[in-house]
Amino acid sequence: MAKQTLYWEDLHVGQKFTSGEYQMDEKRMKEFAAEFDPQPFHLDEEAGERSIFKGLAASGWHTAAVTMRLLVESDLALSAGIVGVGGEINWPRPTRVGDVLRVECEVMEMIPSRSKPMQGIAKIRNTTLNQNNEVVQVFTASVVVFRKSA
Amino acid sequence: MAKQTLYWEDLHVGQKFTSGEYQMDEKRMKEFAAEFDPQPFHLDEEAGERSIFKGLAASGWHTAAVTMRLLVESDLALSAGIVGVGGEINWPRPTRVGDVLRVECEVMEMIPSRSKPMQGIAKIRNTTLNQNNEVVQVFTASVVVFRKSA
Repeated sequence: MAKQTLYWEDLHVGQKFTSGEYQMDEKRMKEFAAEFDPQPFHLDEEAGERSIFKGLAASGWHTAAVTMRLLVESDLALSAGIVGVGGEINWPRPTRVGDVLRVECEVMEMIPSRSKPMQGIAKIRNTTLNQNNEVVQVFTASVVVFRKSA
Repeated sequence: MAKQTLYWEDLHVGQKFTSGEYQMDEKRMKEFAAEFDPQPFHLDEEAGERSIFKGLAASGWHTAAVTMRLLVESDLALSAGIVGVGGEINWPRPTRVGDVLRVECEVMEMIPSRSKPMQGIAKIRNTTLNQNNEVVQVFTASVVVFRKSA
């Protein structure tokens, strides 16, 4: 079933979206870390145990990348794609091997553009949770949204 | 040459660090996007041309991941690793195929922990630039730093 394409007029503060699920794989976690965040606690169980993480932890950027994948596949089907100009990101707790992640989104604010009448910024809070409903990441993003008539 | 390990006492507001360089490869850009951010403007030149990016653009999360790689290999050699609890991220301009990225870091603020006397948070602004000295990402991170006596 094709997803409904969303424009500025389709969004409102308080609106929620949910994603599917994604399971964190040990091999992929270590490969991602080796390429982008080669620190011992992301690469090796024993080093993880000795670290602030008290166990092997995914790179926060791996959690962020998986969150993006879940968003792209979610019902948040914006007409011009999900294009973030930036946002505030926090990792209250590490992602572990085998964790099953999902994302809950909520529209927090709708900010019309002063200079571009056909578009605006939606502030969307994207909360990434694991299978125990513990929050592993909160990313409050400023996303570009176009009006229907654009 | 081994890098000097840095503790809380070694950092001060205004202190700067720089990274090496990393060139964005077209194949890897598209692979990263296919895995984590499968939107047309990150996967295909023509779709990129028709998009808000006016050309093929790397996923912002790829830029973020490469920035982390550059930080891990930089002189910002914190004693317990580079562990961010979060921060503010912005992408003022897309990263393109062939771009050569580097990171400039500056310590913005040192915030002692109230509950944990042996550690604190350093706010570090990490600016990612391309070969034309254009800013492609600014990530102001809150990073955990330990005291020497910890």
